[in-house]
Amino acid sequence: IADPPVKPAKKTKEQYVFSFGKDVESPPLDRNLLGGKGNNLCEMSTIGIPVPPGFIITTRACNDYRGSGRQLPEGLREQAINALRTLEAQMGAKLGAPVNPLLVSVRSGARVSMPGMMDTVLNLGCNDLSVVGLAKATGNERLAYDSYRRFVMMYADVVMSVERRLFEKAFDKLKEAEGVEHDVDLSVDGLKKAVEVFKGIYKEELGEEFPQDPVEQMFGAVRAVFNSWDSERAKVYRRVNSIPDDWGTAVVVQSMVFGNKGDTSATGVGFTRNPISGEDSFYGEFLVNAQGEDVVAGIRTPLPINKKQAQETGRTGQPTLEEVMPEVYQQLIDTGKTLEKHYGDMQDLEFTIENGRLYMLQTRSGKRTGMAAVTIAADMLKEGAMSETAALKNVQPEQLSQLLAPVFDQKAKDAAKEKRAAKGFNAGPGAASGLLVLSTEKAVQWAAEGKKVVLVREETSPDDYPGMVVAQGVLTARGGSTSHAAVVARGMGKPCVVGCSSLHVDEEKGVVAAGGMSIKEGEAISIDGSTGEVFFCDLPTSPSEVVQVLVEKTRRPEDSLVYQRFASIMELADKYGTMQVRTNADTPADAKAARAFGAQGIGLCRTEHMFMDPTRLADVRRMFFSTDAASRTEAISRLKKYQKADFAAIFEAMDGLPVTVRLLDPPLHEFIPHSEEELRELSGVLGTSFEELKATREGLLEANPMLGHRGCRLGITIPELTEMQVSAILEAAIECEAKGIKVAVEIKVPLVTTHRELEHQASLIRRTATRVFEETGKTVKYKVGTMIEQPRAALTAEMMAKHAEFFSFGTNDLTQTTFGISRDDAAKFLTPYLEGVPDPESPSELMSILSADPFQKLDQEGVGELMRIAVEKGRRTRPGLKIGICGEHGGEPSSVLFCQSIGLDYVSCSPYRVPLARLAAAQASL
Amino acid sequence: IADPPVKPAKKTKEQYVFSFGKDVESPPLDRNLLGGKGNNLCEMSTIGIPVPPGFIITTRACNDYRGSGRQLPEGLREQAINALRTLEAQMGAKLGAPVNPLLVSVRSGARVSMPGMMDTVLNLGCNDLSVVGLAKATGNERLAYDSYRRFVMMYADVVMSVERRLFEKAFDKLKEAEGVEHDVDLSVDGLKKAVEVFKGIYKEELGEEFPQDPVEQMFGAVRAVFNSWDSERAKVYRRVNSIPDDWGTAVVVQSMVFGNKGDTSATGVGFTRNPISGEDSFYGEFLVNAQGEDVVAGIRTPLPINKKQAQETGRTGQPTLEEVMPEVYQQLIDTGKTLEKHYGDMQDLEFTIENGRLYMLQTRSGKRTGMAAVTIAADMLKEGAMSETAALKNVQPEQLSQLLAPVFDQKAKDAAKEKRAAKGFNAGPGAASGLLVLSTEKAVQWAAEGKKVVLVREETSPDDYPGMVVAQGVLTARGGSTSHAAVVARGMGKPCVVGCSSLHVDEEKGVVAAGGMSIKEGEAISIDGSTGEVFFCDLPTSPSEVVQVLVEKTRRPEDSLVYQRFASIMELADKYGTMQVRTNADTPADAKAARAFGAQGIGLCRTEHMFMDPTRLADVRRMFFSTDAASRTEAISRLKKYQKADFAAIFEAMDGLPVTVRLLDPPLHEFIPHSEEELRELSGVLGTSFEELKATREGLLEANPMLGHRGCRLGITIPELTEMQVSAILEAAIECEAKGIKVAVEIKVPLVTTHRELEHQASLIRRTATRVFEETGKTVKYKVGTMIEQPRAALTAEMMAKHAEFFSFGTNDLTQTTFGISRDDAAKFLTPYLEGVPDPESPSELMSILSADPFQKLDQEGVGELMRIAVEKGRRTRPGLKIGICGEHGGEPSSVLFCQSIGLDYVSCSPYRVPLARLAAAQASL
Ligand SMILES: [Mg+2]
Ligand SMILES: [Mg+2]
Repeated sequence: IADPPVKPAKKTKEQYVFSFGKDVESPPLDRNLLGGKGNNLCEMSTIGIPVPPGFIITTRACNDYRGSGRQLPEGLREQAINALRTLEAQMGAKLGAPVNPLLVSVRSGARVSMPGMMDTVLNLGCNDLSVVGLAKATGNERLAYDSYRRFVMMYADVVMSVERRLFEKAFDKLKEAEGVEHDVDLSVDGLKKAVEVFKGIYKEELGEEFPQDPVEQMFGAVRAVFNSWDSERAKVYRRVNSIPDDWGTAVVVQSMVFGNKGDTSATGVGFTRNPISGEDSFYGEFLVNAQGEDVVAGIRTPLPINKKQAQETGRTGQPTLEEVMPEVYQQLIDTGKTLEKHYGDMQDLEFTIENGRLYMLQTRSGKRTGMAAVTIAADMLKEGAMSETAALKNVQPEQLSQLLAPVFDQKAKDAAKEKRAAKGFNAGPGAASGLLVLSTEKAVQWAAEGKKVVLVREETSPDDYPGMVVAQGVLTARGGSTSHAAVVARGMGKPCVVGCSSLHVDEEKGVVAAGGMSIKEGEAISIDGSTGEVFFCDLPTSPSEVVQVLVEKTRRPEDSLVYQRFASIMELADKYGTMQVRTNADTPADAKAARAFGAQGIGLCRTEHMFMDPTRLADVRRMFFSTDAASRTEAISRLKKYQKADFAAIFEAMDGLPVTVRLLDPPLHEFIPHSEEELRELSGVLGTSFEELKATREGLLEANPMLGHRGCRLGITIPELTEMQVSAILEAAIECEAKGIKVAVEIKVPLVTTHRELEHQASLIRRTATRVFEETGKTVKYKVGTMIEQPRAALTAEMMAKHAEFFSFGTNDLTQTTFGISRDDAAKFLTPYLEGVPDPESPSELMSILSADPFQKLDQEGVGELMRIAVEKGRRTRPGLKIGICGEHGGEPSSVLFCQSIGLDYVSCSPYRVPLARLAAAQASL
Repeated sequence: IADPPVKPAKKTKEQYVFSFGKDVESPPLDRNLLGGKGNNLCEMSTIGIPVPPGFIITTRACNDYRGSGRQLPEGLREQAINALRTLEAQMGAKLGAPVNPLLVSVRSGARVSMPGMMDTVLNLGCNDLSVVGLAKATGNERLAYDSYRRFVMMYADVVMSVERRLFEKAFDKLKEAEGVEHDVDLSVDGLKKAVEVFKGIYKEELGEEFPQDPVEQMFGAVRAVFNSWDSERAKVYRRVNSIPDDWGTAVVVQSMVFGNKGDTSATGVGFTRNPISGEDSFYGEFLVNAQGEDVVAGIRTPLPINKKQAQETGRTGQPTLEEVMPEVYQQLIDTGKTLEKHYGDMQDLEFTIENGRLYMLQTRSGKRTGMAAVTIAADMLKEGAMSETAALKNVQPEQLSQLLAPVFDQKAKDAAKEKRAAKGFNAGPGAASGLLVLSTEKAVQWAAEGKKVVLVREETSPDDYPGMVVAQGVLTARGGSTSHAAVVARGMGKPCVVGCSSLHVDEEKGVVAAGGMSIKEGEAISIDGSTGEVFFCDLPTSPSEVVQVLVEKTRRPEDSLVYQRFASIMELADKYGTMQVRTNADTPADAKAARAFGAQGIGLCRTEHMFMDPTRLADVRRMFFSTDAASRTEAISRLKKYQKADFAAIFEAMDGLPVTVRLLDPPLHEFIPHSEEELRELSGVLGTSFEELKATREGLLEANPMLGHRGCRLGITIPELTEMQVSAILEAAIECEAKGIKVAVEIKVPLVTTHRELEHQASLIRRTATRVFEETGKTVKYKVGTMIEQPRAALTAEMMAKHAEFFSFGTNDLTQTTFGISRDDAAKFLTPYLEGVPDPESPSELMSILSADPFQKLDQEGVGELMRIAVEKGRRTRPGLKIGICGEHGGEPSSVLFCQSIGLDYVSCSPYRVPLARLAAAQASL
């Protein structure tokens, strides 16, 4: 028997405050306690980087404050004042003193950067006396009063929640009175007046004088930071980003340094490498004699930081830091390298130069383009500055798509500015240029004539698939990023812009108008799927270098630096990834491209597009709708021949890699013509009366086709269909193997709801296989499995696994039914759900209902829960059951991570997302 | 520490065979071992009822046989022969002996009666020698050879699987040769020839002589019974009925008794009480000098068993058993009473009288109508012949609906035989007569003029609701028992026939045709929703007595015996039931009816029908589609007034009982007109251009409206809607309370998918409540809860429960999404799924994919699993959370049982199903 637990000793006095800076020992690094910002400042200080000294009030102080009815916790006040004294001693200046005053900034700093919380109060310590001392100490009266008026406004706004607008209005009046336009042109007297007016507003609004006691100012700001943790905006942000309420925020109090003390002072921002291209060259901007605010506010145009950059951006005439302050510039470059090495990543820096002395105010990993991400990771890996796993983590999978998309030449885009007609959502990255077509028929027809077309539709439907296949790109006036056009285009790696609401599409007249311009069908149009821009003119595009090397094979690997860097990251991905990546491919071309991108098999080969092929459609319709048995049998046998050839070509492309074929899925009515004219034609072909055919069509129309007569429901009610498809698959496999091509085919049954459906189809497949093997005298190995894409299938997976040799999650359908949301109809409410609707509690705030589009990002709580259940139950019946995912989500990084976490064997995605999925899978394995 | 388990002693020799009959001691009753039939024979024998003696081969013998590659288990043969010797000794006759032979029957007998298994071989023991002995012993050569030829055919058919057709053909030839029509007219020589011909067929088909050895015959039959357990038909039956494979079947070998030995012999069947009315009077039929087969075969018309029955069925001239054999008749009555008392239920009997001696061949609980079920249970309870719980279990809940439905007079139906035009599915029990109308508009118009109408449609849609409300009954040519018409009609307790495929509806011409007749709109039509019959004429109907007493109050309880019996069962139900029963009611009339039927509250008050009311529709449309803010506000305030009145009336009807109101659910497009004409009219009303309105309508159309912009998605995107409804509800409640009416209102949010939706709506409801309470200066208690009708809501119930004070399962929608099946489109595949599709393993057999329609019977494996998850997770967050069900399933007995098993607090169903649900809930509690 263990001893009873000992009562904890009386809590030792909590240390709420930690100093940092050159002359004090920094606390042990602890992002959770010190916040991200504070932690990095301590870290920089420790490794000898010059940072303005200061102190940090911990997240624990914040939580104790919040937990005690907004009382500063015991000891905090005393510790903070002690830390302030230490800081004053370091700086040789006293906070807000009449002579040589110290000013400080007060900032919030949670574990992660959190917009929606109080950010910064600058120039704290200004008061009626210290402003005079500041003017004297800096020899700059303008600086002093400008600092004071800024401080009054910031304090009133940020700490006391007075409306900022009141100050801005008053300031505008003062400028008007002097007849000046810009803030910087206001006279010192004007600034002095501003201070008085601002203090007046403060009193008017709050009923008390502006606080003159610097320590009171400081604790006011500290309390404001603490309180901002519980502001509505911060709460919403946390909820959306799943940040726990009990993290709390730290407060950073740091001595001000002034970049506006004269010509040897400056302020700037920069990246240790080029964040656009990834090139190893410092990239940044700066302003002489300015405060940080000024760079951001865009009042003065910042200057390029070095000569290289000045050249590249066509600003060769402008002074650069490299030229103006060569020593400080070199110190900045060295500091950047030190930080880059320390953090093992390209850094985004903020710095201030005060009287020729460099101070770093902030460092963090820099944001970058996809191109830059790959370049930096590959280069730093080569340099030994990054470990393999760090390099892998350093590229966001989504960024890879930028390396694969075709591109417009930026110069050509700039030159065509006048022809920029509209902007929509950038739904499928890449650039496309071609002739405007407004219908799928015309798209197919013109493409057959060798013309490049861009398909523009009010909105696309499944009927438009053939048009999308042949088009260079797709543009729709309606629909969001979950629309049919967007999803299908992304799947095909096709540039796509959707929801371009200013676009007016008049299909009848064959005209498209926007931005006061209009063009006719057949005229040139260009769309940039990476930016959403639409141009009413032709713009030259080219495939990305990676595609040129891998898919088109028009460029040699050794001639493409981009490809080589891409390849080095992909190599790493395959070294670390444990989950396989397959592709969704319906054609040999898709299969080849995917294989070039590293797919380890086909996870989903849909057969419906094979059916929709115009040369076969007549036979497809004969099979489904003909009442003449002989004609029907003939049609089926012709279709089998077609399908056999399709499958053989795919098997050949995948030689030996597994190919999962899904049996026919869409509802019958998709195969019957919509127009009366076509119906009449079909009536002639089938020898069925027009009226009868029309009645057939009416009979096939469904109230909710997504939940209708489709998937295995077809294969069960029309067993000939399954038989035909299975024969075609297996005969193709047998013929391929005879030619020495290895075949590993898996047949999967779509839209299974009850295990009896699967039992039926599996039995029919096996019986058909036996027949084919008897007829041909040969056999081939094959597997039978099922899609799991209905909630019920997941819930009864233990029974499904009795008949299935593998599972494949169809998360598109599964999301639709789990949510009860049709993807086709969702935009009307999903858009406000994502963007936020007025919060009933405070209608001026937006409340978001969903944090992500569940059709893009797998919903782990709901859909994911069903997947977990299915994996667990399925493998209980059949240990080691092979399970994959083949919905759109298979190519979305967070979803890939989830798939790994629940033990899937593979993800499958569209060919152009294979590299991305490989990277995501590797990251999931780390 | 417990002792290690002792090894079981070597198995003692298994007893596979048990004898029964007057002179032997019956085995202990054990239905599992002896089978249902065998067990009852032993039981009758034990309590002194005369049964022909025999023996039983146990189910264990069957299983050991099946487990050892179809070898008779060791000891069985020996034990069976010993039992046969015992039987021979009892009977003083030897099986198949040349002199005074014993004949036996061999039957299968599983735990439960199982059609699809081998049933019976009679006259076993007949051979070339014994037939002569039998003729001598009975003095009836005809009997002997008739027995033999029957036996050869039965043995060949049932035991050896020779096609029965072959024998029937041959027998027909023999009759032809003699020029006779009926079997009984064939001469003795003809029968002798038949025996020879049959034996010839036997040899021809099987390549061996018909077995002459009686013991070989017996074991042949025993093996056949064993094998029949694994026949395809039996397997299918077991699968469909969830009967385990390892139950096995017993075999009953019983000495034959002959009802065809002359005028003091007879055979018959009977019920101990009238199975139609339930009256306590023996009810049956018999034939003098006949075998059991003859009663069934309909070759001779059986006679009424007693004078009462002869009178009642207009057969007063015919001899009755009561008159022909008064003593045996009395013995039969006494035996019936004994058995009834023993089993505590009305019995269905088979008996044979051999030379004036009565033998009981079978007894089992008798099938009965709903009327009889209630009468018998109520009477036997009163008599003390049934316990309270037995009486409760004795009525099947579904049977109660027969007591509530209006009825046609049977005589009137018989008389109108010529006008019987068609037969469809009996989708809503009850009788309806009225003028034929083919559109909802006309139905509403004619009903307003005081005409009774029957609405006939090709198929109904939600638009037809107003027409269905005013019609006496509904008939559709399309749709199954899950169609819109069927579901809505049942919900309203309205007679309904659907899927009447021979019906031709020509709405344009205003004509309906079927069965070679046709009628025009405005002519009389009658439908019987209990049988599916359609008459092209008027037939008189009347409401059931129960409805007359409870709802219409046109009859006093003391004047209706039917009502009194019904009431006594209902009283019992409420005594034993632990789960509450509420009702789905949208109008005060519904609420009153449901309360009369014993509803303990409203579980679902839908508000959409209130919106569809023609007098309000203009305002509803203004609210949704008007662009003029003032007109919109006015419309909303008028609607609020209407809704307030609706709710007040419902609160008044339910005075004090809980009322759960569901906020508006259906998609917006249901509120916009479909026809151009109406659209033009609306355009005038709203002052919006026709084109704009048309565009609005196009914009509202959805690909899959079931998964579209509806439910709380409306309340979130149009918060004014929720505010208006909540104000109306709460203001009505406050006004009612001021009048002394007690109100317990619960507001529920429909179609919630994520907890954030619920959080939004709950917050909006509470905020609106606060406003109403401030405005009125009064408060009222209310609860906020949610529908659980999306898989995701169930899966995340722990989060839902944070915002919900109660859950209500909407199993209609939940079934649709869990199955991925739209109820509106399901018929095309659900019908074959239920009826069976060709089994790929053996295409001549049917394989059923679903054993029940999941929209009628709750799917416990899938939908039920989600419910279990939701109950568990919901109560984990909020212990004691109140949970109910309000889908169609709430009134379906097996679903009610399931709801009790997972711990629901209540079920809610349509008013006319409340009694049924009360009974089901009581049974679930037992
Ligand atoms: Mg799917
Ligand atoms: Mg619902």
